[in-house]
Order: sequence, then structure tokens, then C-alpha cells
Amino acid sequence: MKIHNFSAGPSILPQEVLKKASEAVIEYNNIGMSLLEISHRSKHFVDVMENARALALELLGLEGKGYKALFLQGGASMQFVMVALNLLEKRAGYLNTGTWSENAIQEAKIYDDIHEVASSKDANYNYIPKGYSIPKDYDYFHCTSNNTIFGTQIKQFPDSPIPMVCDMSSDIFSRQLDFSKFDLIYAGAQKNMGPAGTTLVVVKEDILGKVSRKIPSIMDYKVQIEKSSMFNTPPVFAVYTSMLTLEWLKNLGGIKAIEKVNEMKSRVIYSEIDLNPLFKGYAVKEDRSMMNATFTLANDDLKETFDTMLKEAGISGLSGHRSVGGYRASMYNALSLDSVKALVEVMSELETKA
Amino acid sequence: MKIHNFSAGPSILPQEVLKKASEAVIEYNNIGMSLLEISHRSKHFVDVMENARALALELLGLEGKGYKALFLQGGASMQFVMVALNLLEKRAGYLNTGTWSENAIQEAKIYDDIHEVASSKDANYNYIPKGYSIPKDYDYFHCTSNNTIFGTQIKQFPDSPIPMVCDMSSDIFSRQLDFSKFDLIYAGAQKNMGPAGTTLVVVKEDILGKVSRKIPSIMDYKVQIEKSSMFNTPPVFAVYTSMLTLEWLKNLGGIKAIEKVNEMKSRVIYSEIDLNPLFKGYAVKEDRSMMNATFTLANDDLKETFDTMLKEAGISGLSGHRSVGGYRASMYNALSLDSVKALVEVMSELETKA
Ligand SMILES: Cc1ncc(COP(=O)(O)O)c(C=O)c1O
Ligand SMILES: Cc1ncc(COP(=O)(O)O)c(C=O)c1O
Ligand SMILES: [Mg+2]
Ligand SMILES: [Mg+2]
Ligand SMILES: [Mg+2]
Ligand SMILES: [Mg+2]
Repeated sequence: MKIHNFSAGPSILPQEVLKKASEAVIEYNNIGMSLLEISHRSKHFVDVMENARALALELLGLEGKGYKALFLQGGASMQFVMVALNLLEKRAGYLNTGTWSENAIQEAKIYDDIHEVASSKDANYNYIPKGYSIPKDYDYFHCTSNNTIFGTQIKQFPDSPIPMVCDMSSDIFSRQLDFSKFDLIYAGAQKNMGPAGTTLVVVKEDILGKVSRKIPSIMDYKVQIEKSSMFNTPPVFAVYTSMLTLEWLKNLGGIKAIEKVNEMKSRVIYSEIDLNPLFKGYAVKEDRSMMNATFTLANDDLKETFDTMLKEAGISGLSGHRSVGGYRASMYNALSLDSVKALVEVMSELETKA
Repeated sequence: MKIHNFSAGPSILPQEVLKKASEAVIEYNNIGMSLLEISHRSKHFVDVMENARALALELLGLEGKGYKALFLQGGASMQFVMVALNLLEKRAGYLNTGTWSENAIQEAKIYDDIHEVASSKDANYNYIPKGYSIPKDYDYFHCTSNNTIFGTQIKQFPDSPIPMVCDMSSDIFSRQLDFSKFDLIYAGAQKNMGPAGTTLVVVKEDILGKVSRKIPSIMDYKVQIEKSSMFNTPPVFAVYTSMLTLEWLKNLGGIKAIEKVNEMKSRVIYSEIDLNPLFKGYAVKEDRSMMNATFTLANDDLKETFDTMLKEAGISGLSGHRSVGGYRASMYNALSLDSVKALVEVMSELETKA
């Protein structure tokens, strides 16, 4: 049975990427050795790293604009720490739109003063705050573009008078944005970019080197840039598989092309949620995420029936996070429109049954 | 042509491990999805993580002795930082036996006072200092069991009056030791344990929680232990492949069995180095590493001939690190005795030619 994989992350990857990655584990490029067995300083792997870094900048439209791309270890959670270590001198402003923003704030507080410029905690994060102001004298402003758990997404980014840092872990490469509005973007690979184990950081070089604290070498963006993202042994397989996914996206037509598909997928799911009386959307409409659609059953008695129907249809990874309950359909780049249609079919079938 | 892979790291892995890892990238355990595509909170992956952690303790003989095993991100270089963050309150003693010790010292100095209890820098690290003393009032003592670059290895560990921390990146699981002498052991996976992208940390719980600084959650060993090594998304593929390698080692008979093979391999290479007048060993004999044999040509004019012969014999990854020059034969667990014999054959063939 074909599985429709709605997992929130690690999540679905393109079949052709999995095939190539699997082959490279046995033998890379006919060199008689696995990709896992060769020196990261060999030309074979240096080319992979450089290609991945270049593709990331190219797809974001950030080539030649003073940005560098890094593939680091530690996950997005390590960036919560590194952002503060590298940029926080006195005070920073954070937009609190959910669990991941909260975590980013908590870790940054270890180093200095953090001010929540706005928060949607009052409504369990079912919306994105608007109309807040960002103080000019802060070191930077931090936001989370897509709230994986609550299913909200920032549609309109503020014009920040200070460096803008964004956690794009769950929607990078999924929609067109003016990425040059941001000074630092980070994203764990395991949603739209590759397997777990590497994190993309795209940073404008001129914001670095302004804090007075000593930064451990491995956590210093300047050092990582100097070392071409190989201060130490990189997570070879995760970088290679991310490179393959970025190549797949480029061949598809880049962000512009995938955005169209993502728009269709989200239209299909949200219209079912709205039209079908058995389901209720969680996030307020204007802030709905194109990546993670969160919804609940109007009547919890139907849960068992619905879950069984989902299972029979091969729909996997649909349970909502415990902070929201209900269901969450994560529809990252590699998920096909067909999988969303399969889900919607089950939802409308439930209506006929109920 | 069969490649004899002497790479210093990332390095050779068992063929059966590569085969299983490759298959899991396409589909894991007949679940209709790749290992890369499933939630790390699913039972499928939680089992992998728990199995890997248990195997590590079992192979080291540390079950039920107050230790916990963690599979973290960031490489051994991140442990240079985490060790200091978690354990350094006032002062620590470090044994300086090479580049990696130097790096560990440099990163720890960011946090507090570091004292080199002894160093072999005076002889470009071709030996292991002995007879030094470890002050009782320091927070911990740090050493590097095997010096990957210089080809030396500690044979006799001191009886430390304070917690003993050891970087075993390049010889973990290769020889029998009383591992309970150590309070914290760390090792990047990419030599004896798996692909690059995860780092094993084995820590005795009772040494933790004694420093006054605030530690970022992701870098706090206590937090990682509480979260069963899943504070955030782990490097799924690297952990799985490490688990497969640990299973392979267990099926082989564990460290005791592989130690015998490693002893044979190192006897074969070092006797050739000693008996063949064209080669000179770099490290002093009593401190020679069983994992990385470093040697030079007595006459550099033979370099081109030797390199061509190596190439023709399919011998790969033999160039020495620039800090030593010459050659380095890395003979990790997965390298067969046959590969070492193939190398030695080329070395003795050179003697007939010269
Ligand atoms: C928006 C966002 N930020 C951060 C994280 C944490 O990522 P990691 O597990 O790589 O630390 C996640 C994980 O799902 C996320 O969705
Ligand atoms: C003994 C030792 N320690 C530390 C390291 C650094 O490891 P990583 O690249 O994982 O940070 C190495 C790498 O070769 C090593 O051999
Ligand atoms: Mg969230
Ligand atoms: Mg409805
Ligand atoms: Mg060394
Ligand atoms: Mg000799």
C-alpha cells in the first residue's frame, strides 16, 4: 500500500532523492567506496558541500548579496543558542508565536536580556500578532516564520530597523519571499530540505563580529564561514542528501514552482476543513500555515472511526501535537497533491458515514 | 578493483552495515517509508536510539554502573566545549598529546583556567608523557586516548584522583580497557562506530550538576539524559548506522574479539616499518597507536614510485597529516587484516625495486 506521509518532521523526501542517497551509501560515484567512508577533505566531499551551499543561496535568490550558507550540526535548537552567542550584546526582541519561539527565547535568556515584542500565547498561539513595534536600539529581532505545532505562518514580515533573524525550519524553500529582508535565516533540514542531522544557516556576513564575548570556535559563525562550513567533520550524509533535495527543487523550477503546488495543496485541505461540518480549523484563517494544517473534529465521538479510516487509506503521521490536540497535516515540498487529495477524500467520506 | 580504505576518518565501515543502512534509506522494516521520513518520536526510531545506547554501554562493560550513553550532534569538537561547560568550575588539568588535545584545551580556556599537566609538544607529539601528577583539587582531568594525527596511544591510564574525561574518538571499541576508570568518554562516530554526524558520550551521572553557570539546554548533559538523548531531533541516520555497527561488533564477539584482530594488524604493519630499511616509524615504539600507524620514507626520492604502487594496489587514504608528513595507515575496526597485508606487500615490493 502506498503510504501518504504527513509526518511533521523528520518527514517525506522525494523518492529520487532517497534512491540516490541509498546508492551513495553503497558506493559513491563509482569510486569503490561508500560516501560514508571517504575523507570530508577529499575533493569528492568538498564538492558536495560547496554545491549544497551554492544551491541554497541560489534558490533563495541571495547570491552575491553578502550572504554565506553553512550546513551545521545540532539542529535548529542549537541555533537558538548560537544566534544569541553571536549576536546578543545587550538586548534583543523576540516575537513569540509558539513553542519553538518560546524555546528560542528561553535559550537566548541565558546570555542576556530578551524582550518579547509581542505574543499570541493568550490564545494558545492560534494567530500571529501584528502591529507591534521593534525598538531601534536592540541588537536584533527574532521571529519564527512557520509554527509547526500550531499551524500558523507569518504572511507579512515587518520592516525591521535592526537585523532580522528568522527560524524557517518548517517552511524554508516552500514559498517566495524577499529573503534579503533577513540577516540570518536558519532551518533544521528535516522538513523541506533533507534528513535530520544538519541545519542550514544563511547569514549576512556584515552583522557578525559585533559582540564582546568569547565564542567557542565551533559555535562562531565567523569561524564556520572561514572554514567553508568544515570547521570539523561535517554530517556528510545529511549534507549530501540535502544537496540532492535542493537539486531536485531546482530541477522542478525552484521555489516559484513548488509554491504553486504548495498553494494548491493547502487550498484543497483548508476548503475541506471549512466546508465539512465535521472539522474545525485551529488557526485563524488569515494566519493559516501552508505547511501544517491543524484541525480538530467537531465531535470527538468520531475519532475512532476517522482514525481507522485514515489507517485503511494509508495516511500516516496525522496526529496533532499534544499542545493543540486533534490533527495536523504536514504538507512539505515533497508531499504530492495526490496525498492531500487522498486525505480529503477520507474526510468527506466521514461526512457521508456520520 | 577492491579498494583498501586506510582513511583516517570518516573511514571504512563493515560492508553488511552499509548494505542495511542503504536499504533503510529506501524503506525501513517494511513500513512503506524510509528511515529518513519517520518521526523520531515514533516507536520505530525510539527503539533504534534505545538499542544503540544500550549496546554502547554493554560493549564497554558499563551497564548498571551509573553511566548513561548519549548520541549527540556536533562532533567531538562540540564535546571540547560541552565538557568544559558542564564540568569546569575553577580549574581543570589537561594532558597535551597532540592537535586534538590542543584544541580541547583551547576551547575549554574560554570558560576557565586550564593547566597542562604534561605535554609532548617538545618532540612534535611523537610520544606520550608519563609520570605527571594530577592535582586533587582540580575539577577534572582530560586526556586523548589515541592521537589520530601523530599515531600515539595511551597504553596505561593514570589513576586519577579526580573525574577522568577521555576523548576516545579514534580508538573507542578497539581494545579492552577498564572503562569504569573514566567518568566521561566521548567519541565522534566517524572512525570506529559509524558515519560522521553523531558523537557518543558516555557519562557517569554522579559527576554532573556541580557547576554554577547556566548551561544551554541542548548542551547540558543532564537535560540530554532526562530526554533520553532526544532533547531535539537526533541525527537519525547516523544513530541508526552506528547501532548497526555496534551490533556487528557484538556479533563478532565484542571488543575482546576485535582487539585480537587489531593487534594482528598493527603487528603486521609495524614489523614491516621496522624491518624494511626504506621506512621509519614516527611515534616512539612504546607509545605506538594500534589504530593509526605513522611512518615516513627514509629517502624522499622514492615517494613518487611508492605512491604510484599504492595507487595501483588500490590502497587509499594513506597520506599523512601535514603536521607529521609521510604516511598514516589508519586501521580501524572495519579494516581487514587482508588490507594491511596488501599494504605491507607494496612496502616490501618497494624494497626489492629500490
Ligand atoms: C519551527 C521549528 N523550530 C525549531 C525546531 C527544532 O528543531 P530541531 O529538532 O532540529 O532542534 C522545530 C522542530 O520541529 C521547528 O519546527
Ligand atoms: C582524537 C580526535 N578528537 C577529536 C576529533 C574531532 O572530531 P570532529 O571532527 O567530530 O569534531 C578528531 C577527528 O579526527 C579526533 O581524531
Ligand atoms: Mg510552533
Ligand atoms: Mg468545517
Ligand atoms: Mg592528534
Ligand atoms: Mg624501517
